[in-house]
Amino acid sequence: MDIQATMRDIGHKAKAASAELAFASAEAKRAALEAAADCIETSEAQIIAANGKDMAYGREKGLSDAMMDRLMLDGPRVAAIASGLRAVAAQDDPVGAVLAAWDMPSGLHIERVSTPLGVVGVIYESRPNVTADAGGLCLKSGNAAILRGGSESFHSSAAIHACLVEGLKAAGLPEAAIQLVPTRDRAAVSEMLTMTGSIDVIVPRGGKGLVGLVQREARVPVFAHLEGICHVYVDAAADPDKARAIVMNAKCRRTGICGSAETVLIDQAFYDRHAAPFINDLLAAGVEVRADGLLSELQGTIRARAEDFGVEYLDKIIAAKLVNGVDGAIEHIRRFGSDHTDAIVTEDAAAAKRFFERVDSAIVMHNASTQFADGGEFGMGAEIGIATGKMHARGPVGAAQLTSFKYLVTGEGTIRT
Amino acid sequence: MDIQATMRDIGHKAKAASAELAFASAEAKRAALEAAADCIETSEAQIIAANGKDMAYGREKGLSDAMMDRLMLDGPRVAAIASGLRAVAAQDDPVGAVLAAWDMPSGLHIERVSTPLGVVGVIYESRPNVTADAGGLCLKSGNAAILRGGSESFHSSAAIHACLVEGLKAAGLPEAAIQLVPTRDRAAVSEMLTMTGSIDVIVPRGGKGLVGLVQREARVPVFAHLEGICHVYVDAAADPDKARAIVMNAKCRRTGICGSAETVLIDQAFYDRHAAPFINDLLAAGVEVRADGLLSELQGTIRARAEDFGVEYLDKIIAAKLVNGVDGAIEHIRRFGSDHTDAIVTEDAAAAKRFFERVDSAIVMHNASTQFADGGEFGMGAEIGIATGKMHARGPVGAAQLTSFKYLVTGEGTIRT
Repeated sequence: MDIQATMRDIGHKAKAASAELAFASAEAKRAALEAAADCIETSEAQIIAANGKDMAYGREKGLSDAMMDRLMLDGPRVAAIASGLRAVAAQDDPVGAVLAAWDMPSGLHIERVSTPLGVVGVIYESRPNVTADAGGLCLKSGNAAILRGGSESFHSSAAIHACLVEGLKAAGLPEAAIQLVPTRDRAAVSEMLTMTGSIDVIVPRGGKGLVGLVQREARVPVFAHLEGICHVYVDAAADPDKARAIVMNAKCRRTGICGSAETVLIDQAFYDRHAAPFINDLLAAGVEVRADGLLSELQGTIRARAEDFGVEYLDKIIAAKLVNGVDGAIEHIRRFGSDHTDAIVTEDAAAAKRFFERVDSAIVMHNASTQFADGGEFGMGAEIGIATGKMHARGPVGAAQLTSFKYLVTGEGTIRT
Repeated sequence: MDIQATMRDIGHKAKAASAELAFASAEAKRAALEAAADCIETSEAQIIAANGKDMAYGREKGLSDAMMDRLMLDGPRVAAIASGLRAVAAQDDPVGAVLAAWDMPSGLHIERVSTPLGVVGVIYESRPNVTADAGGLCLKSGNAAILRGGSESFHSSAAIHACLVEGLKAAGLPEAAIQLVPTRDRAAVSEMLTMTGSIDVIVPRGGKGLVGLVQREARVPVFAHLEGICHVYVDAAADPDKARAIVMNAKCRRTGICGSAETVLIDQAFYDRHAAPFINDLLAAGVEVRADGLLSELQGTIRARAEDFGVEYLDKIIAAKLVNGVDGAIEHIRRFGSDHTDAIVTEDAAAAKRFFERVDSAIVMHNASTQFADGGEFGMGAEIGIATGKMHARGPVGAAQLTSFKYLVTGEGTIRT
């Protein structure tokens, strides 16, 4: 296969499809998503069979248990994919909304109206459900999608993609509105990253390897999506019970998601009064606690090395450190954080305000678990990822964040003096 | 001068300043802008003297009259720079606004709040007033600015920048909030384009040479700012008087601005009924009309070559062509336009709607002159440029478009189940 020619062809088709999609009716998009969901449900057996090939390939490649779990599809997971598409279908159409409207003394009436971005490239790794989530959100927002799934999920993604195409056909929308890159060759990814003529934005979803590749090679704009090095800061004025509940939940509910806490920061004043009961809770739950300074004297902890801070473990490991008040926490987070999600636990409104003001992460939380960093928990339905950059989209990226806008200006033969 | 070391130092200082600016009070920013305006006014003589050095340099370099005019500062222009700063000072503070707020069933209260982008790099050419406009808008929006003016305006920009720094000092804000690159060496531009660690976004303002350089070399996100290849389409149902007024104004009011029309498209049906009186108007005004097909038979026109369409003349030249209805116009604009500003003249609401829907330019106009493509005319006060891309900012970029947002999430010890 000539990768460059294949990708160029995919790019041309996507561009053409996006020109039509831009003014596709809300109803047609909704119908396509519903029909795709129907197809996913009726194709459960084929999808699971395709997934079986991927699972065999994964075992051959010696994927970790965690990776194999992410790859695996069963009945409930296939059903969840279909219901995810239906949830996106049910959302308000994000295109064509009048975001603002005003009149000028010149006589002009100006409206800012939401429009699709154009063509969205999504590069992801093992989880095959991203094929449906990403394809669905792009369609909802009137964007053509070029999806490049992980080589491990090659067959599963193809089976899911076939249903998306069924949905498009059923609704009379261009089939090229959602294309799946038909090769495992990594050269296709490099190609996508430089297709400035046909891709408007790239959304990378994956680990450090992918992020690094994107940072080095991308010429197309990217929704930055770095690591989730999330912190929980327990302030002097924290309620100890809330602190225990939040620290445990933030670390342990699921350790493999990007909103999982990787470091707990404890105000020295809190520690002096209450010690650190959540550290015992964590240890009891089987979490390895890499503790700095005084904290490392607590039984069961391991002495932290400098390089244990600012690490995305995605595992039953947490770094812990004493800091000097909210400013100490802010300073630590600025230095070691990844602008994803950081939380303060405190009953002191002034401390919370200072933390909200000075921590410049996509999501800043007060008395809540970092595990809420999720499009669903924000009421956005599905998400295409969590953006840690500040350009265009930030935080959970749903359909609305996949739009741009244009100005529609109406006069009555109005000229400028 | 070691350009790389100098720029790295500027980057570090900007990053540090931006961390403070992010939560500077609206009042401090306003005071800084007012004090800078005061300084501009009291330094008129020094600024004009500095501009004299640039004018001498420009003459030596043999700059065109148009370029020399863009470079020149006199009393009224210096006064306009100061009043531009005061207009920005008077605007609402764009930072810290609650853009949306909602409650979730989990008990979380979520707010989306506007924040600065961080550090904005502005690369511009001859007009020295951009130093004040860009520096002022960045400050207003809580961003640190790294300004790289054209080599021609080196001394003028430095004199204006000195006043911006005076303003910052007077308001107790970090002086490094607005830095001017202290060298004419073009290597500084290449350096800026790759400073991903310290610059969050680059705004290029300039001609094709600069745009090409940015497209080739930028690793930092860019607010795309391409050419203004603006079209006026005169529909079958156009009011001939409105068409004449709009075509003349769109081309002739000022030919050197990006909102100036470069092509007029005329529906064959309009031409059959009304001929093209505006072409005679244009010719009478001394405009060279490069006419396609039948139109080239009109006395005084020049026969257009294929390459005369899709050109940003910025001069008394216009291309003219007959098209087949609104769809013919849309097709032409898609092929030759630059996504900047395009207008339809018609009394037919359906044609206008189709044009609004299917022309995907930053600004689409109905019965109005393309020369309104300007931040001031949109009510935004100053503008840092007109973005023709779709990522983040689009159309006139004022202070509000120089912000991002973050989510502030409040719970009561809320954990995720």
